[in-house]
Amino acid sequence: MATIKDIAERLGISVSTVSKGLNGASDISESLRQEVLDTAVELGYTTKQMRGKVPRKLCIFVENMEYETPEQFGYDIILGFRQRAARENYEVTVIPASPSLQSTEKYDTYMLKNGFVGAFLLGFALQDEWMTQFHSTAIPTVLFDNNIKKNHTVSYIGTDSFEGIDDAIEHLASLGHRRIGLINGSRDSFICEQRRQAYIDSMSARNLPFSEDTMPYGYFVPEAASPHVGNLLSMGITAILCGNDLIASGAIEECTLRGLRVPEDISIIGFDDIPLAANLKPSLTTIRQDRIELGKCGFFTLHSLINHVSISRTLLRPELIVRNSTGPIHP
Amino acid sequence: MATIKDIAERLGISVSTVSKGLNGASDISESLRQEVLDTAVELGYTTKQMRGKVPRKLCIFVENMEYETPEQFGYDIILGFRQRAARENYEVTVIPASPSLQSTEKYDTYMLKNGFVGAFLLGFALQDEWMTQFHSTAIPTVLFDNNIKKNHTVSYIGTDSFEGIDDAIEHLASLGHRRIGLINGSRDSFICEQRRQAYIDSMSARNLPFSEDTMPYGYFVPEAASPHVGNLLSMGITAILCGNDLIASGAIEECTLRGLRVPEDISIIGFDDIPLAANLKPSLTTIRQDRIELGKCGFFTLHSLINHVSISRTLLRPELIVRNSTGPIHP
Repeated sequence: MATIKDIAERLGISVSTVSKGLNGASDISESLRQEVLDTAVELGYTTKQMRGKVPRKLCIFVENMEYETPEQFGYDIILGFRQRAARENYEVTVIPASPSLQSTEKYDTYMLKNGFVGAFLLGFALQDEWMTQFHSTAIPTVLFDNNIKKNHTVSYIGTDSFEGIDDAIEHLASLGHRRIGLINGSRDSFICEQRRQAYIDSMSARNLPFSEDTMPYGYFVPEAASPHVGNLLSMGITAILCGNDLIASGAIEECTLRGLRVPEDISIIGFDDIPLAANLKPSLTTIRQDRIELGKCGFFTLHSLINHVSISRTLLRPELIVRNSTGPIHP
Repeated sequence: MATIKDIAERLGISVSTVSKGLNGASDISESLRQEVLDTAVELGYTTKQMRGKVPRKLCIFVENMEYETPEQFGYDIILGFRQRAARENYEVTVIPASPSLQSTEKYDTYMLKNGFVGAFLLGFALQDEWMTQFHSTAIPTVLFDNNIKKNHTVSYIGTDSFEGIDDAIEHLASLGHRRIGLINGSRDSFICEQRRQAYIDSMSARNLPFSEDTMPYGYFVPEAASPHVGNLLSMGITAILCGNDLIASGAIEECTLRGLRVPEDISIIGFDDIPLAANLKPSLTTIRQDRIELGKCGFFTLHSLINHVSISRTLLRPELIVRNSTGPIHP
């Protein structure tokens, strides 16, 4: 359990200032007070005052996504969500939603039985058992990267894949690349369908060649790259977009094993900008998702649904981070 | 200028309770206090305390949209926006953005010169002069019903037209209608393009017949209906979707003039659910947009942009309100 001293050290301020922030004293700024509270939430510190209230309970279900450490994709999303939730006096529980949990208990039953008033769901695949139940649930539910039509208590939040993929292809085209491949994530994923369509749209709009073979599906792990890299290279591909940064790291490794230099011989782009991306050799050009903000927007949207405001979707803008894994096409 | 008594009368509570709400007393509930403050904003009442702070300035530009009275489309959008803005200590100015204003002054120049830190824009048409400037503005800007790609300081908010149109066509199809027309709003409008595409998608998905002639463009006024109604009827159309409630009111009038009964001979559906809709004869089935919530979401999104959170779009869900202007197809 964290102490006041931990918070003070993290923020580089005095223990007495932290104490003022936690106790709502009037002689520190509102923004500093909020930073103290956000850090308290992050470190797991609670005051008697915070514990004294009766919070409403929310949960975050996670499936197919790593989130335990700051290096992992889901960590910041959950952190951003929890920070905002704490401000509104919600208590948040993170629950792995394994297929066996989903098959033993219906979603609504689980929520009601455990007293949760709303849920944020991360990493669900199209074939997950609960997915069909979201069409008819009456419980406020926000899905990251999944879209359920016409149910007024369910929302979709995510990053605009169409803009992200288009930014990446525009960047590669400006470097002279015409033969661009996409090693996608899982076939069983709404967001991968979106990115595939975005790739088709952007390649078509620039009269660049593509086919079923230039956009294979894989999975969100480094090992997913190698089976496809050889195939794409044999088709004359000079640049590869990847479904996430992990796949991109695998693609760089596979190219290196084959004696190719990145970016001199082949350019590679990731998706997400997890901490790994900046530390790869070469550092990875990638399409950034702001995961802290995704978490905050996830909370805002869920809070809106709980208050009977039916938001259908909220999309954040991606940002192309250009590093050293992309360069001009090999002459 | 409104008085405390006006607020008390509007809410049906005592003057002393209003006073407590305005002065932040601790012995009234937070929700009642917020209601008092929201009503104060609506009626234009300000306390010395409210006036004492130095607010940041926002503006709402309105073009091609009526907003002066509660019966008009823009009124509630602006009200919802202003209520939320007041909570965060912003001052809001509503400015008609005529073509002449747009041609005499660039958008950024106008904003900077007048000290506005952000803007919410209602009713802009695709050919409005400022629209091209939004691609490169660096000023936080939220557009209602208009989408600007790739600019991180500009957001789009609106209602999901695809779900709304699909709900309406599903409703008509369930009543046996197959020949369904769309009298759209203006040709020069992003949202009308969306609704046209939504109509095409929904008709196609149900194998219902449509052509260029069944989806004419008009304008957002009652008079726009009459030139198209005769044409649609001659094609055997038995139900008409309209681009807004005003067009629908004109369509009902034109059908009545032609001796047709609504809904016995022809079904008619509007869009928006402005107060007029429930009072038409017959009362109008329509696709509801929650305009207060649109205003609130507009503010939330603008506030996010000002705080460097780049939301690309936020869409609310529409709701089909079934009244008496739709019925089973004439046998």
